[in-house]
Amino acid sequence: MSDIPTLDEIRRAAGRISPFIHRTPVLTSRAINHMAGADVFFKCENLQKVGAFKIRGATNAISYLSDEQIKRGVATHSSGNHAAAVAKAARWRGARAYAVMPRNAPRVKQDAVAGYGAEIILCEPTLAARDEVLNKVLADTGAVFIHPYDHVHVIEGQATAALELMDDVPGLDMLLVPIGGGGLISGSALSAHAVSSAVKVIGAEPAGADDAHRSFNLGYLVPADRPVSIADGLLASLSELTFSIISSHVHDVVTVSDELTIQAMRLIWERMKLVVEPSAALPLAAILAGSVKTRGRKIGIILTGGNVDLDRLPWVKAK
Amino acid sequence: MSDIPTLDEIRRAAGRISPFIHRTPVLTSRAINHMAGADVFFKCENLQKVGAFKIRGATNAISYLSDEQIKRGVATHSSGNHAAAVAKAARWRGARAYAVMPRNAPRVKQDAVAGYGAEIILCEPTLAARDEVLNKVLADTGAVFIHPYDHVHVIEGQATAALELMDDVPGLDMLLVPIGGGGLISGSALSAHAVSSAVKVIGAEPAGADDAHRSFNLGYLVPADRPVSIADGLLASLSELTFSIISSHVHDVVTVSDELTIQAMRLIWERMKLVVEPSAALPLAAILAGSVKTRGRKIGIILTGGNVDLDRLPWVKAK
Repeated sequence: MSDIPTLDEIRRAAGRISPFIHRTPVLTSRAINHMAGADVFFKCENLQKVGAFKIRGATNAISYLSDEQIKRGVATHSSGNHAAAVAKAARWRGARAYAVMPRNAPRVKQDAVAGYGAEIILCEPTLAARDEVLNKVLADTGAVFIHPYDHVHVIEGQATAALELMDDVPGLDMLLVPIGGGGLISGSALSAHAVSSAVKVIGAEPAGADDAHRSFNLGYLVPADRPVSIADGLLASLSELTFSIISSHVHDVVTVSDELTIQAMRLIWERMKLVVEPSAALPLAAILAGSVKTRGRKIGIILTGGNVDLDRLPWVKAK
Repeated sequence: MSDIPTLDEIRRAAGRISPFIHRTPVLTSRAINHMAGADVFFKCENLQKVGAFKIRGATNAISYLSDEQIKRGVATHSSGNHAAAVAKAARWRGARAYAVMPRNAPRVKQDAVAGYGAEIILCEPTLAARDEVLNKVLADTGAVFIHPYDHVHVIEGQATAALELMDDVPGLDMLLVPIGGGGLISGSALSAHAVSSAVKVIGAEPAGADDAHRSFNLGYLVPADRPVSIADGLLASLSELTFSIISSHVHDVVTVSDELTIQAMRLIWERMKLVVEPSAALPLAAILAGSVKTRGRKIGIILTGGNVDLDRLPWVKAK
């Protein structure tokens, strides 16, 4: 792991991407603190460009590319926020962007990616089809692959969110971060570890997509087996890279049911007036379920994104 | 109008209430700026205590009460945010609060008011019944009436929102403010007039509750006649006090259809990830409808509140 970013490198990444992203606010809610029995600080990446923290990693990774690489363009696969982030970040450097998306990706997400100027290549919604189509795109175009999380520079970019949160709120006891493929929690754990050994990093993962929970406790990588969750941003499996960072720098990984996730999501909408996607609600759900010892502590949470289909809210029954 | 607050008095009010309220952030959206052809700065009072700017006026008015008055308690009538604000502000001074609310006020709003510790007295949903019940409460308890807008100290408190916005964003060309009973726009106009004559203040009112529009253009007070609008916070009629301030300090009053209001509300949820109530969306709706000359200007908007029933969103068809 000799190429794992240091605190200095993360700080330099933060400076490099700062012209292109928002310094998102940290908000609190007295009502939620009361329910949690803790002081909870929410880093609002739902208010970030493209509506999600993903713009940090994509922008950082693309900032490292040479002019020659930029000429060939960039490519990725993603059903959601990462594809939009790569499309937007590519535009800043004038690079073409190719996004391989499953045929069943929500129309609203396809529109967002196309709106940022990427060329969308649809594939069947299987891992094999996705990889095959992506490899063909890479072979045809020579584009550089920006993996959603199995990528050191993506992780380095995602690390800047936790760094800003810790800069704004000194003395945090704990950071609670959702886990999908593990890019955000890997970056957060690297930042926390470098800033202060007193900050514990805990992952929150959907019970129906608990590969990180299993891998963390078993000590070897267990891929997700047909993951299902309302938290559509958290269905991916860890990679060797993210698993190795999580194993060495994360303190625990807890799981959360979809039902509690939806309740916590609604609570954030109602009490904080913030639109967040289901994935963003897992850390608060874990606290309110009593899955993490938070009583009396100072807790940081990254609200990862706010891209939801407003026509299909999980608590509104379509009759 | 000798008791109309001066800039000095508004600044003192801001200092007095500052320990009890949030300094709310000002947010922007590149996508919305693009659609509007203008730079739009949103003052996020939906993120305010009780989820609405109303806490400013209520806190300020109650801060003026003597200890003897506080012992008698405070009372108000309101179907929504003002009652919650009075209840919460009363609690800070240890005063009892009485809220006269129409029997058909949404359960969620009654719960909020009760949750802040006020005693709710239900009445039939007519102006006559409301006034009769309120007068009985005042007679029985000796409580001090905190009118939702026909009250100089309430207006002085509401004025602090525009003042903060102008402090944070110097050089605004225009402030766009929703109009119900006229408390917020009166305060905003007093602040704007005192800070710079270059800041035009424009009111946005529901087409179905257009008493301020008519009164402004006819030059005499026309009460609302059976007002109907999705913007449930904007159904009240101007008072002599707010009409007189609006007549002398506001530059125009435009009307907005419910359909455009709902579209603008949804746009704010989707692009800014902010939960706002319908009333808060009228200014943006007016801009996007082309009802105000905003091209190339620097526009301030007060997002007045975020208290909505998440089970009944106006764009979700209940089938």
